[in-house]
Amino acid sequence: MGRKSEDSKHDKAARSGRKPMGKAEYLEKLAPLELELDTLARWLQHTGRRLVVVIEGRDTAGKGGVISAISHPLNPRMCRVVALPKPNDRERTQWYFQRYVAHLPSAGEIVLFDRSWYNRAGVEPVMGYCTPEQAQAFLKQAPVFEKMLVDEGILLFKYWLTVDQAKQEERFAERLADPLKRWKLSPVDLEARSRYAAYTQARHRMLEATHTKHAPWTLVDFNDQRRGRLALIRHLIDALPEHDVPGTPIDFPPLPGEPLKERFKGPLRPI
Amino acid sequence: MGRKSEDSKHDKAARSGRKPMGKAEYLEKLAPLELELDTLARWLQHTGRRLVVVIEGRDTAGKGGVISAISHPLNPRMCRVVALPKPNDRERTQWYFQRYVAHLPSAGEIVLFDRSWYNRAGVEPVMGYCTPEQAQAFLKQAPVFEKMLVDEGILLFKYWLTVDQAKQEERFAERLADPLKRWKLSPVDLEARSRYAAYTQARHRMLEATHTKHAPWTLVDFNDQRRGRLALIRHLIDALPEHDVPGTPIDFPPLPGEPLKERFKGPLRPI
Amino acid sequence: MGRKSEDSKHDKAARSGRKPMGKAEYLEKLAPLELELDTLARWLQHTGRRLVVVIEGRDTAGKGGVISAISHPLNPRMCRVVALPKPNDRERTQWYFQRYVAHLPSAGEIVLFDRSWYNRAGVEPVMGYCTPEQAQAFLKQAPVFEKMLVDEGILLFKYWLTVDQAKQEERFAERLADPLKRWKLSPVDLEARSRYAAYTQARHRMLEATHTKHAPWTLVDFNDQRRGRLALIRHLIDALPEHDVPGTPIDFPPLPGEPLKERFKGPLRPI
Amino acid sequence: MGRKSEDSKHDKAARSGRKPMGKAEYLEKLAPLELELDTLARWLQHTGRRLVVVIEGRDTAGKGGVISAISHPLNPRMCRVVALPKPNDRERTQWYFQRYVAHLPSAGEIVLFDRSWYNRAGVEPVMGYCTPEQAQAFLKQAPVFEKMLVDEGILLFKYWLTVDQAKQEERFAERLADPLKRWKLSPVDLEARSRYAAYTQARHRMLEATHTKHAPWTLVDFNDQRRGRLALIRHLIDALPEHDVPGTPIDFPPLPGEPLKERFKGPLRPI
Repeated sequence: MGRKSEDSKHDKAARSGRKPMGKAEYLEKLAPLELELDTLARWLQHTGRRLVVVIEGRDTAGKGGVISAISHPLNPRMCRVVALPKPNDRERTQWYFQRYVAHLPSAGEIVLFDRSWYNRAGVEPVMGYCTPEQAQAFLKQAPVFEKMLVDEGILLFKYWLTVDQAKQEERFAERLADPLKRWKLSPVDLEARSRYAAYTQARHRMLEATHTKHAPWTLVDFNDQRRGRLALIRHLIDALPEHDVPGTPIDFPPLPGEPLKERFKGPLRPI
Repeated sequence: MGRKSEDSKHDKAARSGRKPMGKAEYLEKLAPLELELDTLARWLQHTGRRLVVVIEGRDTAGKGGVISAISHPLNPRMCRVVALPKPNDRERTQWYFQRYVAHLPSAGEIVLFDRSWYNRAGVEPVMGYCTPEQAQAFLKQAPVFEKMLVDEGILLFKYWLTVDQAKQEERFAERLADPLKRWKLSPVDLEARSRYAAYTQARHRMLEATHTKHAPWTLVDFNDQRRGRLALIRHLIDALPEHDVPGTPIDFPPLPGEPLKERFKGPLRPI
Repeated sequence: MGRKSEDSKHDKAARSGRKPMGKAEYLEKLAPLELELDTLARWLQHTGRRLVVVIEGRDTAGKGGVISAISHPLNPRMCRVVALPKPNDRERTQWYFQRYVAHLPSAGEIVLFDRSWYNRAGVEPVMGYCTPEQAQAFLKQAPVFEKMLVDEGILLFKYWLTVDQAKQEERFAERLADPLKRWKLSPVDLEARSRYAAYTQARHRMLEATHTKHAPWTLVDFNDQRRGRLALIRHLIDALPEHDVPGTPIDFPPLPGEPLKERFKGPLRPI
Repeated sequence: MGRKSEDSKHDKAARSGRKPMGKAEYLEKLAPLELELDTLARWLQHTGRRLVVVIEGRDTAGKGGVISAISHPLNPRMCRVVALPKPNDRERTQWYFQRYVAHLPSAGEIVLFDRSWYNRAGVEPVMGYCTPEQAQAFLKQAPVFEKMLVDEGILLFKYWLTVDQAKQEERFAERLADPLKRWKLSPVDLEARSRYAAYTQARHRMLEATHTKHAPWTLVDFNDQRRGRLALIRHLIDALPEHDVPGTPIDFPPLPGEPLKERFKGPLRPI
């Protein structure tokens, strides 16, 4: 497929030229989605189903932001975020998927992977942290691994957040200029700047090998992070089976007496 | 100590009568604290020190909110939130602290406990989920357990968020009325309403037994959640040893060419 | 295949009619195998390879005995026996293989599974502890799961210990009569007596589905446990790649002085 | 205490001069102990109590042998042997006891530690694998840690196996000469030879600090390993509370028909 037809098909990219969504509009549109996420979580609890959401994408794309948006309205006992540190020396010699398997959900749980086993399809081969053979083997294993989870009834969704380099540069520059954001910049992250095209290539290979019927990828345009978050959450909710569950009616009788005030014994007082 | 002297000493409670802090002011005051949290996290990484923060308090006090405020600006690979589900049948028969120990930090890590081993000093005895003997044994063990961690060099901070019942009622009512918040209300949570005084008593006992020199509690007034968050974070930062660490200078050369756009092969396009 | 041709082919079964091997002969034949097991373990350490041995078979067949025979001469830090208790309530809702994955070997390790994920092909369907659908799903997943391990370079061997019912009865009766062995008998185990044929059927299905090129089963006749153990260990050693590794020459200089005696301070003396 | 009075008190050391116990006598004496171990295990299951046995001692003393003797007659699902490999790079930065805590028993379980947290009182300071400060801190923490376990109702027994250097030398020499035992010798183990006295000193310090009322040590003379094993198991059984438990009567009806033979479908036949 030539460059041109690619671009012409990708009219949605034009979105990045649109005026970014304002905060008020975002919050207004987010509110009903939060309600639906809550319904979804209650449905999982009710049915014992399990949900895994893999969030991947470029640096600065906004992985952390969308994960916060999803987990924020949910009970942290039902929705866990898994952001594994680099493997320790023993883990490095184990079955590659082993340390991820340990975090798969129990009945009723949502697990959000902030980066995932797909490290071995992205940052690792691009930065030279694994051999080409290991990366190749991973691409072969991942669909098989995922098929096992899906066949067992685990709901699995994989999102890859896209962002154009101009936007990425803008965000890097912002982080550099703003002391409040500067902490997000590390020399290592900056390596990604010059390897934008290599990451694109790696993603091509990854999609080719792991965009399967049982565990498809969804690309989400995060040139506008607010629009991206809304689109991703909308997609996730729509992709799940009908998940209504009867609400528990809540009885809220008046207190029997005057509301109490905090009372303190001993020397401690609140700050 | 009589009721009166208690109240008169507790002039900070008047704070709850103050006009609640507006969002703009909150964000303005939060910004420099986020910078300091970042410095703190880098100091931990640099020195290999480990930080545990226990967040306890009444329902609706705002535990989740302050945990988000702390973790939000930090790298999720260095700052983990631990919100354990109820123990499984095997864990229930193990050493009480065992399942918490598994989540203690490695070098350079921050672990925020959203509720903690102190379940056994609060919700468990108040709701009858443990025997009085178990609760009593816990109060004796907790300071010993914590002393071991502190003696090993782990930095341990314990916060208990206070809120008057009138405020708590207000927040319960809000959750009930607002479909966007209703999900936060469960029949079980509402039990807490009628047991406000029992929770106060349980907290008295807990402070008496576990407010130690090596691991003191800090009460934080969360009648105004924004003020509470700022106060807690400020306290945490000030309580830590001098933690400056030299920043890594960041080189940000211009890109060698035009910024690239996302390019796609195959059928997938971003939503 | 008719009964007759089966039997005629199975001339090895005649072995069970042979005089059982005596202890002296057994120990004499075991000795060189222990040496080879040691060489094998050192080869694994040297190359970082990983070995998984699954031991399955009928009750009384002698699973524990052959596992002891293998692990006995080896450093327990390099050879672990995994005999999982029944799953806890959370594990029961997780991916079936999850709790086994947690015990897979790191570089240089041997893991001996005393019963394994194959519970779901044997005891579980035969005793009604899982649904027929779960058993069916397992038979489909197991070869895929195992292929992933093998493709990653894990050495995987699966043994199923056979024993005729007359022999099994004899061993049950022995356990019943001998107070020293009686503890091995539980009412649950005895259920197996009347389900001998059902276990045979379950094994047929299991072999049909999971005797694969990448992870073949080996049946071992344990009508004579000593012969069975020798045959299994011999097979395991021969099945592994050439695994010689240069021994480390050991320097054993004389002690510089008189050998010391244990000396004791304080009140404690050895019993 | 002078050398002489020490020796004169230690008349049991004379035992090492006695003729070593023969195998037949050993097995005869072991048999009833095995029965008692079985009763003990059933008592633990019945009451849900938990048992931890720490086995420490000099190289060649016979730690592995006594652990095998205890675990051999027991159901491996109720009795686990924990022999941890050296800590990985993350574990090395965690609370020292953390990785041991993960293996503490659930209701009804026996855990046998083949070496334990006491590494930090023996091999680590003697071989220079930890700082003197770490060793010192450990000696202060261990009794506190153990008190927590004991106060929770865990049954904790600590055994240290003694052996005179002449005997140790003899065993080293045996291992060197006998190809069947040579694998037990590593250059590292041999380091212990020249540090016999340093180990004695380290044990003195350990006993002084950690021989407590709630978790006493028992020294066991392993100059004769068979006598040592019998003495240790006898001591363990006697030290436990009265632990009789009603046996489950076992019904052993005759088989309804002829005993079946193993039948095979497909190509596989037993080796």
